[in-house]
Amino acid sequence: MNYTIATLASHSCLQILKGAKDEGFATLAIASKDRALFYRRFNFIDKIIPVAEYKDIYKLNTELKKQKVIIIPHGSFVAYLGEDYDKKLKLPHYGNKKVLEWEGDRLKQTEWLNKAGLLTPKLISHPSLINQLVIVKFFGAKGGSGYFLAQSEKEFIIKIEKFKGEKYIIQEYMVGTPVYLQYFYSRINKQIELMGIDRRYETNIDGLSRIPGKFEKNIDFDPTFTVIGNFPLVIRESLLPEVYNMGERVVAVSNKIIPSKGLYGPFCLETIVTKNQKFYCIEISCRIVAGTNLFITGSPYTDLTYGEPMSTGRRIAREIKEAIRLNRLQEILD
Amino acid sequence: MNYTIATLASHSCLQILKGAKDEGFATLAIASKDRALFYRRFNFIDKIIPVAEYKDIYKLNTELKKQKVIIIPHGSFVAYLGEDYDKKLKLPHYGNKKVLEWEGDRLKQTEWLNKAGLLTPKLISHPSLINQLVIVKFFGAKGGSGYFLAQSEKEFIIKIEKFKGEKYIIQEYMVGTPVYLQYFYSRINKQIELMGIDRRYETNIDGLSRIPGKFEKNIDFDPTFTVIGNFPLVIRESLLPEVYNMGERVVAVSNKIIPSKGLYGPFCLETIVTKNQKFYCIEISCRIVAGTNLFITGSPYTDLTYGEPMSTGRRIAREIKEAIRLNRLQEILD
Amino acid sequence: MNYTIATLASHSCLQILKGAKDEGFATLAIASKDRALFYRRFNFIDKIIPVAEYKDIYKLNTELKKQKVIIIPHGSFVAYLGEDYDKKLKLPHYGNKKVLEWEGDRLKQTEWLNKAGLLTPKLISHPSLINQLVIVKFFGAKGGSGYFLAQSEKEFIIKIEKFKGEKYIIQEYMVGTPVYLQYFYSRINKQIELMGIDRRYETNIDGLSRIPGKFEKNIDFDPTFTVIGNFPLVIRESLLPEVYNMGERVVAVSNKIIPSKGLYGPFCLETIVTKNQKFYCIEISCRIVAGTNLFITGSPYTDLTYGEPMSTGRRIAREIKEAIRLNRLQEILD
Repeated sequence: MNYTIATLASHSCLQILKGAKDEGFATLAIASKDRALFYRRFNFIDKIIPVAEYKDIYKLNTELKKQKVIIIPHGSFVAYLGEDYDKKLKLPHYGNKKVLEWEGDRLKQTEWLNKAGLLTPKLISHPSLINQLVIVKFFGAKGGSGYFLAQSEKEFIIKIEKFKGEKYIIQEYMVGTPVYLQYFYSRINKQIELMGIDRRYETNIDGLSRIPGKFEKNIDFDPTFTVIGNFPLVIRESLLPEVYNMGERVVAVSNKIIPSKGLYGPFCLETIVTKNQKFYCIEISCRIVAGTNLFITGSPYTDLTYGEPMSTGRRIAREIKEAIRLNRLQEILD
Repeated sequence: MNYTIATLASHSCLQILKGAKDEGFATLAIASKDRALFYRRFNFIDKIIPVAEYKDIYKLNTELKKQKVIIIPHGSFVAYLGEDYDKKLKLPHYGNKKVLEWEGDRLKQTEWLNKAGLLTPKLISHPSLINQLVIVKFFGAKGGSGYFLAQSEKEFIIKIEKFKGEKYIIQEYMVGTPVYLQYFYSRINKQIELMGIDRRYETNIDGLSRIPGKFEKNIDFDPTFTVIGNFPLVIRESLLPEVYNMGERVVAVSNKIIPSKGLYGPFCLETIVTKNQKFYCIEISCRIVAGTNLFITGSPYTDLTYGEPMSTGRRIAREIKEAIRLNRLQEILD
Repeated sequence: MNYTIATLASHSCLQILKGAKDEGFATLAIASKDRALFYRRFNFIDKIIPVAEYKDIYKLNTELKKQKVIIIPHGSFVAYLGEDYDKKLKLPHYGNKKVLEWEGDRLKQTEWLNKAGLLTPKLISHPSLINQLVIVKFFGAKGGSGYFLAQSEKEFIIKIEKFKGEKYIIQEYMVGTPVYLQYFYSRINKQIELMGIDRRYETNIDGLSRIPGKFEKNIDFDPTFTVIGNFPLVIRESLLPEVYNMGERVVAVSNKIIPSKGLYGPFCLETIVTKNQKFYCIEISCRIVAGTNLFITGSPYTDLTYGEPMSTGRRIAREIKEAIRLNRLQEILD
């Protein structure tokens, strides 16, 4: 097996390359120069290519092809390479690039999720219709950066000011507990797997909420929602059948709206569980999410099904290995 | 060893049957028809019997006895089979059924805990005496469902309306941090073990608390306390001696008030740790709790004492195996 | 290898001695009489010496030296032995005792951290200058006990009353998410390692924050910050290079200000991550912290770099073993 698993040095690179090494692949990280030194600490990374900026990966086509590289995308690809990386990247890429069009547009996301029978928060079509607590989210996954709360059109207008020209949605703020469901869908064996569950840790909201009301004065109490980490979590077993069903329905619909391959590999449904124990899906991420970094040697869910440590990164590598063995690699590359 | 470990397909069934399989038992899940398909995903479950409703287990007596089934009860047994399942279930059952009478009655629970020297929140004997923040809890473990807060008799009367006829207690709301202590007491070796610690994740309170005060208006701010998941936790080592002592005292008292076998197997003390580092026990669960689902390959506490992955489910199976080996199985069945 | 690893029976003793046993050392706990029984539960502790009070360790010099004891200090040493234990303890001690002088003085801590280029919260030099939310902290690590919030000089004066004569600092209250970074610096191989990350669980603040604003009345809403436990956490991979850099800079500066050996072994940077994703270091602990008790079989970070379970306690023992093998033990003892 002389393929090399490669990715950009950020986000979940360590997990991905550790998993690839555990499955017997050569590993490669493309790292910005200031980060290359950091990534050299990890001996499961066989090779590091330092670049001035991540977009230089486009210039490395010939070199990387010679090394039989398979690129594993993660949640920072759009941020580092731009929304159109699906068109520009000419290397074997694990995962369906066409999914990006649906993932990157929050309205199409909602359409997809609703077609799959998932509940989603109400969308407010115009600021003048804001008559409850809403959260405003911008297009493109940026780890929650920039999201803001508003309760009125007036408040919205003031706060949107600094985001001139950006696309956004106005979403009903769902009251309930955040639950992030990490899935893996195998195109090889047509099975959905639950890889783990986490709750995101967001600054500064998760700090603000530890300040009692009486101390609020003098403090800028407008929360931000920048994700800086993750907590591991398990949920009630009685909710798991619905969790698996949701994952399967999202994949099934993807095969219709994003033919011919649909969504496969790792993805995440970001949900709020309301007091009636209903899942409201607030976002979908169609690639490996950072919350999987919790489970380098497996989560309570993979511990049930695998007799060995199994991270999402390793699961990807195993899928590729299996596809190679079955001579079906082209089915899972794009 | 031709026994079969069986349980109802919910709550901690996966953990229980995974542990049983790891210890060499045959495994069986009794599943409602809509869930049977889900449980087929797990290859450590040897057999699934689909039923129209869980109470159909009573009709399976002859069939299950032939398979030498040992039933492991969990936190959903009362919800699925009724409060009187201890009388109706005629199959070998791990754990003392007589404990249910004390567990199911919140006043007797408090009596038991106090006899064992545990601190418990003050009980308010009549709504007219409410002069502080209280939490109202109903009899029977329902995962926190229905619990509500009140600060006055008037508020109580409005909120109790929809629970007509249900038994409840009015408990002082303890200010402090929730800590759920998962124990195992072995009747075979007379030892108490700490299997793990968690904090419950409750909807919608754990979502409400992330909304800054200034956004509260327009939001229904009456919290609900439905448990939908669990976070793993460790506590100060200096608190552990008291943790073990509390567990031992609860078991010791159970031998007096629930003769002759008392409480054994897995149980949980649900506590609030106050600012003076005192444990106030708000509930006791006398069977495996869902928080143990965090620790499929062991918790930081079992990692200290076992040289191998040890979940509470597996611990139960090992206890049964040991009892069989010593020809003492009848001592731990009821 | 006939050395014995020993520590006081509290804090992270179980982890330290479990790790020492896993690395092949004899193990010894010095336990107060009321705790000795508890520690006997753990069979990786070869010997327990019961003492009336922990300071009796000073009387055991001859006995312990005969057993070739190496003392591993932890976060309760100052609390149990006094601030001057560095002078009184005449036994081989892992870690630089001179660090204590800088660690124990919050002003010198800040100086050290700032020299290393770390951001720290603003210090308010006099109560009359309080014009924002501040947190008042006392000298000496006491697990957050006694810390209080204030918003004005008046409030400060009332609250400081009961701490007459204690040294304190007035620190700007940083709004952001707490992130506790557990490091290990090896003097043998000159490498910094990230051993794990946690968030502390503090009573009663982490309980108070679960009470909606409208129920605040009648409740004593002045939070306390006593650490009673820890949650495991991972952070964004893009923050890790800075995490390693901060650790390295803190060690580098320590070699200048605390010659000749500087800081080595386990330490912890307690940080707040602000909404701009900046780390503000609120404290440094120059020994093993209790948050490492989460990771008895390793954290997501040690899982990346070690092919085996690696706690901080075990890492210490391995360092000592390696030093013995290289005949460099004296370099890491003090």
